[in-house]
Amino acid sequence: MVEGSDSKYVYNFSEGNSGMKALLGGKGANLAQMTVNGIPVPPGFTITTSACLQYLRSGPEFLEGIWHDVLSAVRSMENETGKIFGGEDNPLLVSVRSGAPVSMPGMMDTILNLGLNKITVEIMARISGDRRFAFDSYRRFIQMYSNVVMGIDSEVFESALKKVRQKENVNYDHEISATALEVLVSEFLEIYRSRTYTDFPEDPWIQLKSATEAVFDSWNNQRAKTYRKIHSIPDDLGTAVNVVAMVFGNSSNTSGTGVCFTRNPATGSKDLYGEFLVNAQGEDVVAGIRTPMDISRLKEIFPKIYKELFKICYSLESFYRDMQDIEFTIENGRLYILQTRTGKRSAAAAVRIGVEMVSEGLIDHRIAVSRVTPRQVELLLHDQFDPDADVSILASGLPASPGAAVGQVVFDPDVAVHMKEEGISVILARPETTPDDVHGLYAAEGVVTSRGGMTSHAAVVARGLGKPCVSGCEELDVDLENEVIRVGNTTITKGEILSIDGSTGKIVLGEVPLVKASISPEFETFLQWCDEIAVLEVWANSDTPDDAVRAKDFGAKGIGLCRTEHMFMAVDRLPVMQEMIISDNPDDRRAKLDKLQAMQKEDFKSIFKAMDGLPVIIRLLDPPLHEFLPKEEELMRYLDDLEESGFRNSLEDEKVHKAIEMVRSLREANPMMGFRGCRLGIIHPEIYQMQIRAIFQALVEVKKKGIDAAPEIMVPLVSVIEELLSIKEMIKQIASDFQKLSGLELYYKTGTMIELPRAACVADELAEETEFFSFGTNDLTQTTLGISRDDAEAKFLLKYVKKGIMKENPFNSIDRKGVGFLMSLAVRKGRKVKPDMSIGICGEHGGDPDSIAFCHSLGLNYVSCSPYRVPVARISAAHAQLGLIK
Amino acid sequence: MVEGSDSKYVYNFSEGNSGMKALLGGKGANLAQMTVNGIPVPPGFTITTSACLQYLRSGPEFLEGIWHDVLSAVRSMENETGKIFGGEDNPLLVSVRSGAPVSMPGMMDTILNLGLNKITVEIMARISGDRRFAFDSYRRFIQMYSNVVMGIDSEVFESALKKVRQKENVNYDHEISATALEVLVSEFLEIYRSRTYTDFPEDPWIQLKSATEAVFDSWNNQRAKTYRKIHSIPDDLGTAVNVVAMVFGNSSNTSGTGVCFTRNPATGSKDLYGEFLVNAQGEDVVAGIRTPMDISRLKEIFPKIYKELFKICYSLESFYRDMQDIEFTIENGRLYILQTRTGKRSAAAAVRIGVEMVSEGLIDHRIAVSRVTPRQVELLLHDQFDPDADVSILASGLPASPGAAVGQVVFDPDVAVHMKEEGISVILARPETTPDDVHGLYAAEGVVTSRGGMTSHAAVVARGLGKPCVSGCEELDVDLENEVIRVGNTTITKGEILSIDGSTGKIVLGEVPLVKASISPEFETFLQWCDEIAVLEVWANSDTPDDAVRAKDFGAKGIGLCRTEHMFMAVDRLPVMQEMIISDNPDDRRAKLDKLQAMQKEDFKSIFKAMDGLPVIIRLLDPPLHEFLPKEEELMRYLDDLEESGFRNSLEDEKVHKAIEMVRSLREANPMMGFRGCRLGIIHPEIYQMQIRAIFQALVEVKKKGIDAAPEIMVPLVSVIEELLSIKEMIKQIASDFQKLSGLELYYKTGTMIELPRAACVADELAEETEFFSFGTNDLTQTTLGISRDDAEAKFLLKYVKKGIMKENPFNSIDRKGVGFLMSLAVRKGRKVKPDMSIGICGEHGGDPDSIAFCHSLGLNYVSCSPYRVPVARISAAHAQLGLIK
Repeated sequence: MVEGSDSKYVYNFSEGNSGMKALLGGKGANLAQMTVNGIPVPPGFTITTSACLQYLRSGPEFLEGIWHDVLSAVRSMENETGKIFGGEDNPLLVSVRSGAPVSMPGMMDTILNLGLNKITVEIMARISGDRRFAFDSYRRFIQMYSNVVMGIDSEVFESALKKVRQKENVNYDHEISATALEVLVSEFLEIYRSRTYTDFPEDPWIQLKSATEAVFDSWNNQRAKTYRKIHSIPDDLGTAVNVVAMVFGNSSNTSGTGVCFTRNPATGSKDLYGEFLVNAQGEDVVAGIRTPMDISRLKEIFPKIYKELFKICYSLESFYRDMQDIEFTIENGRLYILQTRTGKRSAAAAVRIGVEMVSEGLIDHRIAVSRVTPRQVELLLHDQFDPDADVSILASGLPASPGAAVGQVVFDPDVAVHMKEEGISVILARPETTPDDVHGLYAAEGVVTSRGGMTSHAAVVARGLGKPCVSGCEELDVDLENEVIRVGNTTITKGEILSIDGSTGKIVLGEVPLVKASISPEFETFLQWCDEIAVLEVWANSDTPDDAVRAKDFGAKGIGLCRTEHMFMAVDRLPVMQEMIISDNPDDRRAKLDKLQAMQKEDFKSIFKAMDGLPVIIRLLDPPLHEFLPKEEELMRYLDDLEESGFRNSLEDEKVHKAIEMVRSLREANPMMGFRGCRLGIIHPEIYQMQIRAIFQALVEVKKKGIDAAPEIMVPLVSVIEELLSIKEMIKQIASDFQKLSGLELYYKTGTMIELPRAACVADELAEETEFFSFGTNDLTQTTLGISRDDAEAKFLLKYVKKGIMKENPFNSIDRKGVGFLMSLAVRKGRKVKPDMSIGICGEHGGDPDSIAFCHSLGLNYVSCSPYRVPVARISAAHAQLGLIK
Repeated sequence: MVEGSDSKYVYNFSEGNSGMKALLGGKGANLAQMTVNGIPVPPGFTITTSACLQYLRSGPEFLEGIWHDVLSAVRSMENETGKIFGGEDNPLLVSVRSGAPVSMPGMMDTILNLGLNKITVEIMARISGDRRFAFDSYRRFIQMYSNVVMGIDSEVFESALKKVRQKENVNYDHEISATALEVLVSEFLEIYRSRTYTDFPEDPWIQLKSATEAVFDSWNNQRAKTYRKIHSIPDDLGTAVNVVAMVFGNSSNTSGTGVCFTRNPATGSKDLYGEFLVNAQGEDVVAGIRTPMDISRLKEIFPKIYKELFKICYSLESFYRDMQDIEFTIENGRLYILQTRTGKRSAAAAVRIGVEMVSEGLIDHRIAVSRVTPRQVELLLHDQFDPDADVSILASGLPASPGAAVGQVVFDPDVAVHMKEEGISVILARPETTPDDVHGLYAAEGVVTSRGGMTSHAAVVARGLGKPCVSGCEELDVDLENEVIRVGNTTITKGEILSIDGSTGKIVLGEVPLVKASISPEFETFLQWCDEIAVLEVWANSDTPDDAVRAKDFGAKGIGLCRTEHMFMAVDRLPVMQEMIISDNPDDRRAKLDKLQAMQKEDFKSIFKAMDGLPVIIRLLDPPLHEFLPKEEELMRYLDDLEESGFRNSLEDEKVHKAIEMVRSLREANPMMGFRGCRLGIIHPEIYQMQIRAIFQALVEVKKKGIDAAPEIMVPLVSVIEELLSIKEMIKQIASDFQKLSGLELYYKTGTMIELPRAACVADELAEETEFFSFGTNDLTQTTLGISRDDAEAKFLLKYVKKGIMKENPFNSIDRKGVGFLMSLAVRKGRKVKPDMSIGICGEHGGDPDSIAFCHSLGLNYVSCSPYRVPVARISAAHAQLGLIK
């Protein structure tokens, strides 16, 4: 099955290359490639994955059978290093590491310093002139070997070590004296004996064979098997064993160790970036005892080595065609490269490196795009806490809408509006938010809630507005009455400064410096490449002219959802809407509707102008009317307030009582499944008629100014074809009226949301009568799973995810087996009737990379998401086309 | 296409038979058959349906072409009667009637006395010696002909008639004098002339031809076309024209007219049943001027005629193998049969006639079953207002649960319970009911609500209890505070007697005598035949031991749904349940659960005993916990009451405040899609564990007494397989504990509800892990259509049905395109994995005949409905198998 699997089981590094990952594992293949490329890698060899599989089938005899090959590979190492494995003059020490074809935690990792025993440790001490170093290496080897090969819990060694520290009265291991370490080694050996009933193996060959077997066996340990199962990794890959000569950066003052990157991982600029220490081992860097020097200093200290390293670094980058993260060690003036791998980088660096490597001819667009993740792009688009700032976290909530913000805390949305007008930045704090608070969300820099999850009202609205939000921070007691927040013993009063980070969920008392979001020219280029690759278009959900401008700036190719109800939520409009709803006098109602129509018309005109010919999908009124009205308690309180202040009068009384009556009559047990969407449009046609008139009036007026506009009118909450036909007739009638009146040819489309399971079931019928579909996956998820989003998170959904009942919150990422099944059904049925039908998605999922990949796989035409998520969606669409997300 | 259509267009009655309906129409074929059978039918002939089609294609020339055939058919009539058509001695008068192959209103019906003109009317007057009779016949003929043939509105003739009555100062037409009628005829002829600009045709042949054309033309009038479209009747059937010699029962004292049935249409007994009048026409019976005699008197008055009639009646019944409704006329001592048709009958008669005809060997079981409709069976099972009682309707609401009841009106459920205990029958009146009122529904004879539809809470619970319910009676203002009902100007106070009929929706002030429901031995036999024919079994939804006994009595083959939550609603149990929910002390909670467990165990034992080995599907707790708690307002009010009465104390305060806190924390925006069903079972496992333990404890205890029991445990509201697995594991664990403890082999099954669209989508996965499915079509309808049942009816659903947006309320009959599509998907997916999987339905639809037919077509194993609907379901299942409902 694997190349050469029938005869050759041991490969010197000089015999392999990076194409042989299946046989040599990732680590082995890379070490071999570097060796072949003439890069100074410590000598070593790899025992292949097929040896592993044979061993697992046949048992230890198999290893016995190929041991002569291992022997001769070790002999090559001895020749190259001039050291002898188990030799009493200049002993060769090796590291043994596993290396599977795919990176796989859960398996045995590393044993260093293999080859040490009671004799070689003394020789090491003598040669290095550092007894402490020799015994420290030895005790580490014993500990690693005991743990990895014999399965003895590390804890027992650590506790012996701790006792020594106490006895010596020191804090750190490196402060323990050589003498104490010698005693500790004896203790370690005794622990080994007492646990295994055998002596610690003195023979390096036995050490090597046992370590090899342990690596092979670890392929089938429970953790590895589980990991493979979860990640769908085949069981028949096997793992290789890499045996590498040890080199020591702490051998002398012409020794050292370091790490470097071929490009700046923070900014992406093409500089050699990294740090190093003279006469030190890698561990010393980790331990943080000595401060490493910048890699540029190497140029001064070891100019020859620097030059060599520089050359090697860029030859590796050229070879791998990506930024490399390289570990090196200098042993007595000689440079060794211990490892090279693709370097991790910041979001900004990822984009810049990609774009520059394309212009350097190293890679093409597709590869550049494939190397930046949607998550990275997301970070680029939002302010962040300065990572260097010293902050103390007050509390943590859910990272509900990304970005960071700073402002004075306020509790009342009206106050937020007022302060904003005075130029003061505010953070709105509420137990939870409702549609009544939206104007406050508009005004605030960010919002914090103590209840509600990632898909709570606050979270959804904040994401829509591109404002940071930390939701469900249960540690906070937000007391609206007294206008304070209590956290433990701290009480925060109105006006104190809060900083919040909606990407991490952190809340800080006081001002945290922010790193501003930056959209570089490289980023623009990069996103254009994404669009070239992607098949799926990205549109935006935009409810206001401002939103539309932003959507276009972010690269949206259309508006996939304009929620006309959001237009009524503005402070100056809500009262008109409320009066219209409460009115029981037809003339009065008509007057209010006319007023609303004029407002909507102006909005539509501005949106049409902003989108300049790109499609604009306008959804007719969707929410139940009671969402526009105040709560009964509020009205009651208002009456009480009037009473107290002496302003109560019969006229006002009657008005408020009428409102209360209306609020009561509109009350519903389950408003999500209630009197809303096209149901409203059919029972109270005057509202939809007003909206449709506003659309065509706007269309006529912009057309007269020579502006192209393409309104697509979308009917929400359709479940039976008759609903659609009824509204379609209304649209046709009004369109024809405006056509006649204006003498213009007015182009428009009629479409429907697919947001109820029944709509998916009868998508073929609906396709006959519509020009487009748009999946409303928020409601479709609620109805398909029978889960009310507003209630579920706190009550059971988060616990479900925790318990593994659900793998993910279905409101974050599309539930493919349920909601996805119905979507695929609707696409199939719809396209059967109209093969070219335009189908998109306008739910929250339209901005989620996994969901976007799913939409791509269904063959949708576009996803529509909040303007701020458009760039993320653009790269996700490209990644979906490249098969990077599925 | 039709037999003989190429040559012969006119058939004398002696040339046809009842098998020629396609060609002769239903009426013509029956008249021909009677003629052939030697029954004295007045002579006549039929112009065929193919003549009609030819005429409609080719126009009047076609009729011209076949007129010689009509002529010779009239000649035959003349020969037989000795009268001459248009003759001046003894003129032949005829009736002209349309008769299509299928009964079809909307077409031209009847013209009587055709052949009359200014001359023949005088001859008629002379021969009959009754000038008044002759001119009355003439004016009727003119009116019918003008209306039917010329399309002149009857209203103008009626108004002329009215003026004559006023002038003559009489109330009824038969009181108008002959002289006045003569003047009226002139007036009618003048009306005809003024509307048509022609004279009324004097020539009987022209009258006949025009009438024939009018009948043919009426096949394509708008009403007929619409009717055909709605009822899927092909347009190419055409209608026939029947021309029959007039006979007059008012010719002499040896004449008469009557109607009789071959069996008693009220009771079904095999007696000749009917009535007649001597020297009278059919119209005299209708006008109600003279009281007809019982048919038995005919035996005394005209013994020979009676004997002849008796023989004819039973020969017709034998021939048609069904009870006949026969019209006869005696003209001068000679008997004529004018019509025979299948007689309408009461529900009780339908059953008795079916059963007796089988034992007489006239028909087989299948035909007997096919002749009784589910709706008739429903009537048999409930008390009704005595149809002879003289009632004045107070108001009408929706017929929400069938049956009639009488009692004192009460408004408070507690009072209802109290009065019931004192032996007083009560009717509960509420604006609407909630789960808190259930004990009142139990106690009352019936319930009336002013709000809510056919599927409102009151309606559903009442149907479950088999109690009459009139819901949504908006005329009533039910004022709970003052304990009165206002209807218009009437005010009904507590304690006044109300009678309600839930089959018709009628409400009467005062006591209406009731006809008691009766289940006869014939009915038992009949239902057993239904079971023999049906493929689909009928199970019952039963929550209590009483219900289970009833279910078995009504013939249920198992319990398809035992809602364990209903067991907690009883007056003595609810407090324990509430304390358990509110408890925050684990020991206390456990103690309450133990108490509930003991209660549930006893219930299960009784149910197992009642069902004696038949399957019992027990559904684990389904509703959200807040349904068991009082409302916040109630708790507040309770505190106020304590305060007022001086009993308020800190202990009680704390308890109530804890309850209020719990009520608040359990509040949900959309409880239907909230924290309920298996979601509760997973987050609070102790409740489900208690219920499962109660089931197995009951099983062990009855098994030890030698009673067979077959519990099937059903998990509600499953949407993902992991939910099911989690509860299944719980069941397995407890089952194995009880198995070990008891040493008994305990058989049980685990199944799931399919009540969320997602469950249908993943039915294959669910089938792997379950032994049965049960469709919960109430919730499946709510989620598939996104319609909250509790809210929708009043707000838009009834209006939708009225406007034709939906053909039927989907909560009454399964929405086949949406809910049905998902059901069929689930059946297909489930049976693919487990071909023999038992699948049923336990929603309200399980008792609806159309929905039962749909379940039959899906291949379900059973439907489960309220015990009271089991007989209806049994016949529906049989009718579905016979293809009578689809």
